[in-house]
Amino acid sequence: MMNIAVAQSGGPTCAINASLVGVFKESLKETKIDAIFGSINGIEGIIQNHLVDMKAMIRSNEDIELLKQTPSTVLGSCRYKLPDWKEDDSVYQKIVKTLKQRQIGAFFYIGGNDSMDTVNKLSEYFKEQALDIQVIGIPKTIDNDLCITDHTPGFGSAAKYVAATLREITRDSTVYSIPSVTVVEIMGRHAGWLTASSVVLHALGETAPHLIYVPEVKFSLDKFLKDVRREMAKHKAVIVAVSEGIEVPEGVQSGVVDNFGHKYLSGIGKYLEDTIRQEIGCKVRSIELNVMQRCSSHICSMTDINESESIGAAGVRCALNGETGKVMVFRRVSETPYMTSIETADASAIANNEKYLPADYINADGNNITDAAISYFLPLIQGEPDLVMEMGVPKHFTLQESVLK
Amino acid sequence: MMNIAVAQSGGPTCAINASLVGVFKESLKETKIDAIFGSINGIEGIIQNHLVDMKAMIRSNEDIELLKQTPSTVLGSCRYKLPDWKEDDSVYQKIVKTLKQRQIGAFFYIGGNDSMDTVNKLSEYFKEQALDIQVIGIPKTIDNDLCITDHTPGFGSAAKYVAATLREITRDSTVYSIPSVTVVEIMGRHAGWLTASSVVLHALGETAPHLIYVPEVKFSLDKFLKDVRREMAKHKAVIVAVSEGIEVPEGVQSGVVDNFGHKYLSGIGKYLEDTIRQEIGCKVRSIELNVMQRCSSHICSMTDINESESIGAAGVRCALNGETGKVMVFRRVSETPYMTSIETADASAIANNEKYLPADYINADGNNITDAAISYFLPLIQGEPDLVMEMGVPKHFTLQESVLK
Repeated sequence: MMNIAVAQSGGPTCAINASLVGVFKESLKETKIDAIFGSINGIEGIIQNHLVDMKAMIRSNEDIELLKQTPSTVLGSCRYKLPDWKEDDSVYQKIVKTLKQRQIGAFFYIGGNDSMDTVNKLSEYFKEQALDIQVIGIPKTIDNDLCITDHTPGFGSAAKYVAATLREITRDSTVYSIPSVTVVEIMGRHAGWLTASSVVLHALGETAPHLIYVPEVKFSLDKFLKDVRREMAKHKAVIVAVSEGIEVPEGVQSGVVDNFGHKYLSGIGKYLEDTIRQEIGCKVRSIELNVMQRCSSHICSMTDINESESIGAAGVRCALNGETGKVMVFRRVSETPYMTSIETADASAIANNEKYLPADYINADGNNITDAAISYFLPLIQGEPDLVMEMGVPKHFTLQESVLK
Repeated sequence: MMNIAVAQSGGPTCAINASLVGVFKESLKETKIDAIFGSINGIEGIIQNHLVDMKAMIRSNEDIELLKQTPSTVLGSCRYKLPDWKEDDSVYQKIVKTLKQRQIGAFFYIGGNDSMDTVNKLSEYFKEQALDIQVIGIPKTIDNDLCITDHTPGFGSAAKYVAATLREITRDSTVYSIPSVTVVEIMGRHAGWLTASSVVLHALGETAPHLIYVPEVKFSLDKFLKDVRREMAKHKAVIVAVSEGIEVPEGVQSGVVDNFGHKYLSGIGKYLEDTIRQEIGCKVRSIELNVMQRCSSHICSMTDINESESIGAAGVRCALNGETGKVMVFRRVSETPYMTSIETADASAIANNEKYLPADYINADGNNITDAAISYFLPLIQGEPDLVMEMGVPKHFTLQESVLK
């Protein structure tokens, strides 16, 4: 018999709680597993021995269904970066102390790129210390920028929100008789996956987005203005999708840096709006999809939610097989019908790496996405949840205060 | 026998096409009515004789259902302000020419405050000219700021989006262990109805929004910072809902003015974010709900959509009764169960007037909304559409090119 612990880390998504449900339900089934601990605020909860009993927290099938429809991380999150244990292992000792005290034999970390760095470091440290504690990473990120995996849990829901919202913005933009440009800023620091996914609208007969800019292509303001002028000659209302991470002149980005050294980017849409107003002088507006693209569970992709639950469950089976330092990944087995299998990859191969858009997804002009990308994106945004409503508003699962004490 | 014409005007909403459906379906039923013309880009289409045959445009019940789920104005819109006909009636002569040529006996204008000014002026002019052409206004605005009517079509859907999204943003905001403030900027130039509607979350057990600022209350930056500090002492993640129209120091607003003399407001959320960062120094972000609050049909209120269709239909019956210069309005007959009736009001009493939040909806401190408002808002956001999906994205009705020619 052993206990297990699970934690959530990094930026919120619509699917990260579904992966938690996957770990929880699979662990419940396993006779070898006794207590299921949830760590509050990612690895910080393990360091501080701040854990909750997940069987007390999730008490019914209704709770489970609700949790799968609840955005963000019910156990909280963190952006804590573990130091190199060869240089300083004091925090690792705290982690081991908690895990030993709670008789935890396996730890599941649901998170992005940076969390997989934690999975890698912890599993190496435990091996070095000859501790029999499995560490398994369950990926998640709306950025879809993890290596090896076909796609990441959380991405499909964000892409569905982006597609639905861009279509609605397109309707909103075409009402007046005067020409206009609408710049929509979409998340994605270095990789343009989410912005590129808006190309699915082309498969639905929309001409929008008329221009798509991703960080993989060097951005030129002169070329951008030429592109906009050319599209304005063809369309009354030009819709531009732009990644927050495209390279623009110094000073536009706020420059604040987080614990992982990432710059907080903002304002690219506004900057392009101002530039168009100044240089072209037409009606122009910018729209930042902001955190809504990562937390709008009311229009999540059921394919994403179901896959996210499955990959959490697969993580538990992987640990029970004695594996450690692994990250669960999707492999696309077939395109039509869409089928995936779940496999494992070494955390060391995923941590601190980023996956970029393939070259054939980007058009020759570097200002749009090719039809080749459509069959990749479309299956990920299929299916809608049967929403649990509460007085007209989607209901959420929240942590009861009593469980926290 | 006579023909009728209908047009849509002002800013888009999720329900303005439902009112068009109401006019269309009711007119189809009437044996007195022959052709149903849709005017392209509001009154501009009448002036330029740019009309479409709506029976060719809407060809099936499927089209009707789709149109009710399509945001914005399928016939286009305008922000055209009619001059005073006593001073210059040249444009009125063009309007009369089109209406006579097309044998139009009734004109329905679906729009906001400014469109009701057009209804008023046109009906006066036709009376003066002894023309037997009825002019009826069908209200719409997400701002809910029209007089006499209990509420406006389009408002309920916007309020439902705001409530659902603010709840999701609340989940997104509470994940990290460090204290934070999230400022959410909501539409509303002079009246705070939409911002105030976020109070429904209190009925759902949410403590957010912790602070709500509306234009009806004089805004003080010093008091605001005190309010934020006090809420930060109580809550880890403070959520602030703020109307775009609150009064802030000169220079923050962009100052661009539209045809009706309205200032385009923007950047209040960003301004408060920057002020909090500078004065309090905590983690802070601002989110502008932007046009998504008026075009997110995928989470529209079915109560709103159904009422919007009904009020369009009632407009047709009103015109057939020989009335003119009237605007259709809702009266709330009963709170529990929620029941409304549709009545008429003089366009002159609605045009160019604005309705503000009642004093008892605003708390004594002027920084939140009272529970008294909850029973007003809640019925308006009930019910969800059975969305027609297309490859994972909500499908929309669009005007076929062939109909436009």
